[in-house]
Order: sequence, then C-alpha cells, then structure tokens
Amino acid sequence: MDPGSVGTVETRYLDLPTPLRLDSGRELRQVRVAYETYGTLSPARDNVILVCHALSGDAHAAGIAATPPAESTRDGFGAAADPKGIGWWDGMIGPGKAFDTDRFLVVSTNLLGGCRGTTGPSSVDPATGRPYGSDFPVLTVADMVRCERAFLDVLGIERLAAVAGGSLGGMQALQWAVLFPDQVDAIVVIASTHALQPQGLAWNAIAREAIMRDPAWQGGDYYGTGRAPDAGMGVARMVGHITYLSAPSLDDRFGRRLRFADDLRYTLAEPEFEIESYLHHQAGSFVRRFDANTYLHLSRALTYFDLAREHGGSLASALAGVRARTLLISFSSDWLYPPAASARIERALAETGKPVENHLIEAPYGHDCFLLEEARQTPLVRRFLNGSRA
Amino acid sequence: MDPGSVGTVETRYLDLPTPLRLDSGRELRQVRVAYETYGTLSPARDNVILVCHALSGDAHAAGIAATPPAESTRDGFGAAADPKGIGWWDGMIGPGKAFDTDRFLVVSTNLLGGCRGTTGPSSVDPATGRPYGSDFPVLTVADMVRCERAFLDVLGIERLAAVAGGSLGGMQALQWAVLFPDQVDAIVVIASTHALQPQGLAWNAIAREAIMRDPAWQGGDYYGTGRAPDAGMGVARMVGHITYLSAPSLDDRFGRRLRFADDLRYTLAEPEFEIESYLHHQAGSFVRRFDANTYLHLSRALTYFDLAREHGGSLASALAGVRARTLLISFSSDWLYPPAASARIERALAETGKPVENHLIEAPYGHDCFLLEEARQTPLVRRFLNGSRA
Repeated sequence: MDPGSVGTVETRYLDLPTPLRLDSGRELRQVRVAYETYGTLSPARDNVILVCHALSGDAHAAGIAATPPAESTRDGFGAAADPKGIGWWDGMIGPGKAFDTDRFLVVSTNLLGGCRGTTGPSSVDPATGRPYGSDFPVLTVADMVRCERAFLDVLGIERLAAVAGGSLGGMQALQWAVLFPDQVDAIVVIASTHALQPQGLAWNAIAREAIMRDPAWQGGDYYGTGRAPDAGMGVARMVGHITYLSAPSLDDRFGRRLRFADDLRYTLAEPEFEIESYLHHQAGSFVRRFDANTYLHLSRALTYFDLAREHGGSLASALAGVRARTLLISFSSDWLYPPAASARIERALAETGKPVENHLIEAPYGHDCFLLEEARQTPLVRRFLNGSRA
Repeated sequence: MDPGSVGTVETRYLDLPTPLRLDSGRELRQVRVAYETYGTLSPARDNVILVCHALSGDAHAAGIAATPPAESTRDGFGAAADPKGIGWWDGMIGPGKAFDTDRFLVVSTNLLGGCRGTTGPSSVDPATGRPYGSDFPVLTVADMVRCERAFLDVLGIERLAAVAGGSLGGMQALQWAVLFPDQVDAIVVIASTHALQPQGLAWNAIAREAIMRDPAWQGGDYYGTGRAPDAGMGVARMVGHITYLSAPSLDDRFGRRLRFADDLRYTLAEPEFEIESYLHHQAGSFVRRFDANTYLHLSRALTYFDLAREHGGSLASALAGVRARTLLISFSSDWLYPPAASARIERALAETGKPVENHLIEAPYGHDCFLLEEARQTPLVRRFLNGSRA
C-alpha cells in the first residue's frame, strides 16, 4: 500500500432528518447523502475540509474503494495507469498530501442530484415509490451547498477549515463562502468560475440537447423501461470531454493517426482516426457508470451558477460578505474555465480587501489539469492551508 | 438593385457524360452537377474562376435566387440583414467586387455528395431507381475536385484563372493545384488547412455521431420512410456552429443574458439563456434545408483530407508540383482552422520557391469570418488576381 494512501474505504450513507427547501421553491424529502471521510476529527472539531466534486465525480475522492465499480470514475488521460477503484482526487488527499489526512478530516459527499448514492433523479421519490425521473426538481449550486450544510449538521460539524473543489466543485466552494461566511475559514477554488462564459453555456446546452433528443430519454422517465438515453449521453460525454482537453494535448496524444496502418477504410460508421476511437471509448465507459438525468441536472445547475446576477452583475458586491481566505488556481490551457475567470474573482475579492491568492499553472491538458496536475497543485494547497501565502 | 450584384440567377444542371471513378475504388454513374455562372467567358476562355463552397453551402454563391429556398443558406451572424435568396458569398462576387464579374466568369458548383442539386446520397441511384442512402460511396476532396474537373470539361473550360474557397472550399482549391498543376493559374485558400487538426477531427466525429445515433437515421436509409435524423442533425449543427464562432464573439453577442427578464424558470427542457435559444434556432433552420447523409459525407471527406499523408507526412513534397500562385487568408479568432494552418502551407510553398502570400486578418468572429469579413478580404483578393502582391 502506498504510504500516501488513505487505504481501503467504503462509501457510507446518511439520511437528512428534515426536508430540503430548494431555490426553485420545491422541497426534497428524505434526502440521502453518500459520503466518505478520510482522517480523524480533532477534539475541537476544527479540522474538517469538505471536498466537492465536479460533474462526473462522486463521494469516492481518495483511497481504494472496498467494492470498486465496474467503470473507473477516473477517465480521460488520467485513467491509464490507475489501480482499479482509486478515488478521483487520490493524488491530492492522504497522509502528507495536499489535503493532509494526518492533520485534517477530509469529508467528501456525492452532490445533490447525483447518481452515486446521494438523492438524485434516479432515486425513489418517497411520495410515489417510483424514481423521480422527470419530476426531479431543477437544482442550483446553492441547493447542493445547503444539502452539504445539512449533512454536516447531522455529523455535528459546524465550521469548516476549508471547502475545496475544481470546476463545479469550485463553484460549490465559492457558494459556501457566500452562503455561510461565518462557517468557512478558507476556500480552494480550482479551474472554476463565478459564472460560466457563453461558450461554456453553449457546450453544456448542446450536451443536454444530445441527451434530451434521444427518444430513449422519454422525457426523463426512462427508469424501469429497459431503455436509457445512452446514445445521446455518449454524444454529450464526447462534447464534454473535448472541452475538458486542449487542442495541443489532443495533437500530442493522437495527432491525425489512423487506426489501421495509415490506410483509409472509406467508412462513415466506423472510427478511422485514433481520436475517433478514443471518443467512442470515453462515451461507452461513461454511459455505463452515469445517469443521464443527473448529467442534465448538474449541467443545468452549473450553467445557472452566477454569483453576480443577484447583485446587479457586481461580483464584488456578491462577495462582500465573504470571510474565508481564498486560494484560486487555474491552468493556462483551460479554455472552458479560463484563467481570466479566476483573475476576475481575485480582483473582486481584492477590491474589498479580502485575503486572496491566485496561481496560474502552465500546463497543457486543459480543464482536466485540475485532476492531472496534482503534483504542482500540492505545494500551493499545503502552504495555503498552513496559513502562509504560497 | 445593388450595382455590385450579379442580379437574379437561376441554378442550372449538367449531367456528366462519363462515370466518375472515386478514390475508394467505387464509381458513380450519371453524375449531375448543379451550378451557377456569373460574368462572361472571354474569347480566349482564360478568365474563369471556380468558386468552391464549404460544408453547408451550395451552387448559389452570388446574386438573388430566382426561386429563393425557404431557408437561407446564409445563417449564423451573417443572416440577420440579408435579403431572401442572396448567395452565400454575394459580398465577394459581382461587378467590381473581389471576384469581379466584369473581368471574370465566376463558376460555382454544388459539390459532389451535396444535397442541393449535385449527385449525393439523397439522389436516385440509376442502378436501383431508389435514393442511394447507405450505398452512397464515401468521398474524398480529390473526388470532389475530379467531379469539378469533369464538369468544366463539358463546358469546354480547360484552364482556370483561379480556384477559390474557404474552409472545405479552400481544401478543394489546394487539391486542384496539386491534381491539375498545369490547369490552375492561382488559388485563393481562405480559412483552410492542408489537414484538419485533431480537435477538428473530434468535433466532426461528434457531429457525425449525433446524426448516426439518431434512430431516425436508419443506417442512412431514411429517404421515403417519413422520418429523418433531424434531432441528431440539429445537435451536429449546434456543435459545428459553436466551433465556427469565437468565444469572445459569443460573449459580445449573447453574454449570459436570460430569455425571460433575468429570471430563472428552473427548467431543463426549455432554453433559459439567449444563446440556448439561438442554438435551437440555428439547428431548426439547418435541418429544414440540409440532408443528413450529405452532412456525414462532407464531414468525413474533410477529415480525410491530408495533403501530406501520401508524401510521408511532408507537405513540401506534396506541394512540390504546384504551379499556381497561392493566396492564403486566415483570421485571428479562427480556432477551428487556425492561422497556424495557413502559415504551415505558406512555409511549405516558400521552401520550394513557389509564389505565395499569406495574410492574417484580425477579426473576432472565428471561422465564420470568411463569410463575414468580405470587405477586408476584397482588396487582398483583387490585388492578388491582378497579379501584384498585396
């Protein structure tokens, strides 16, 4: 066993004692939260770090799953050499790692709306005894954060030493600092934004369209019908996957190499280029492990997310109440959540004198860097959590 | 009538007298070509410019169609203020324009595999009396060019003063210069490449997948079934459309504006953001005017296109026989056919002492610039066609 590993872990489940009121006005009852913890709670209960996952993640952030799923949650360029069942942020969480489980109790939950144990559209609606499907309420990032807050209440954890995440996970960290300023000491916001740019809105809209136009989606009520919108979700995943990578990294990895000895087969239906095969593989493995309605809901929530909107477009006003120290990290080749988005948050925090640091890492793998460039994020996160500037 | 317009035009049709032998080894018989001409053939027959269209274009490049189609072939940012039935490159072709019909006879054809009059997958196969559908052969850009060559033979036009086009049209121009070096005096290659980069391969593969995964595609044999893969082709068009535009231009045009007075509706199925409505509109208008199998074939052909492949990866070798003068134009914000691709062609031609000029236009609209930035292309093209360096 790697000395930096948290070892074998089992996902646990907790039911919230009270209904969850949502931004839409709807209410979710009997909400279940899937979670894992790594490390030990301090007697003062002041060493908890909440780790928030991105669209395709789950509660299994670190260590080796006691019962590994058939499909790894680590896919893309990161999947190749990984042992089966390894957590999606294992390189960042463990003894001596960025989120050091010798010092901190790291808590990771599957987010609200998920399909990996936390209540989501594929869960049974207690009111009907059938899966929610099309009746699952549209969520916001704030709803996810309130769910995490309610979950931590049950565990008896009031304050957080930090909330950390990349992409949609970073949005949750920002939302925590805004919603619960007195309960968060620090946030780590990686490859994220306070509001997705219009091109990102478009990619997400296209991915959702691909799912919803698949007749097997059946308006969202495909559970138990023997059909699921796998075809459409495969396309959605392909779109997402290419937006997570950079053009130069695709060039490095695949170039224009053909599958068959540099010879064209003159076919429409079969992949001819290696990158086409790779997309097929990515799509196939994703649909086997992920629920299409969850994809729709998380994609919708992350497009809604816009901290400035409720403050007349002023991000500085939106962040005026933040008390947490903020660490921002972005990656030079990330064109979906570009460095400019982190710089904008930095400026808005700095304007009102909040403690913030922003680091741009030069790296080629696009948005996926937040999962791949663990070694270079580690010293930044460690120093930040120690309370000194990096 | 605008004095720069070629006036009202009618698309004509011509049947090739002999079968067309394809790169795949297949043969197409009774090939029909849809075309338009603007201007007058000189007595020496030496003033002909062939204009080649891109994926979604057709033979109607200039003037006003005598019988305008229901859906404009000009869509995207360019469509807004255009009169109905205007040609897709009307700003570039006409008396006194870049391709000056007072001097040149401009010929424009719908390309092989098309769906606007030239033989393509929706045409009737003379061998069966039914539309080709899944039996239509996979094409290459060289096949398209050989079809154009055969078509011009029938018109009695041996030499071309120039071949010009953007995107897939530019690929055809390059291919002309390589295949028929003694018959082309000049090529104008705009926003194009000698080989699409891997990210471009990926976007095209995703668009094709969206069509082929639509059950209404029926393996390509949807003609006459009352169903067509409109849903999948809508997604394909959305993907294409976003790759044709730049992120900043989407930001300028749409930002994160909501459709309904800055208020969220908490809906998955309906567009919430203006850019989502725009994508819906684009998809809807495209599926009404374009055949899905043609989309698949043209997309496949443009991903196959790779001038260097048959020369051990050496573009300079591939271009060694070129005798045409070459004008290259690219656009700073075009990330699908980036300026680096034009620079690569320029270097390969310059290495072997070929006359070439390459112009980079700073413009914000991405790949669509070749259709939108007509005013800035005009002086470059005019000077080039006059034989002087721009």
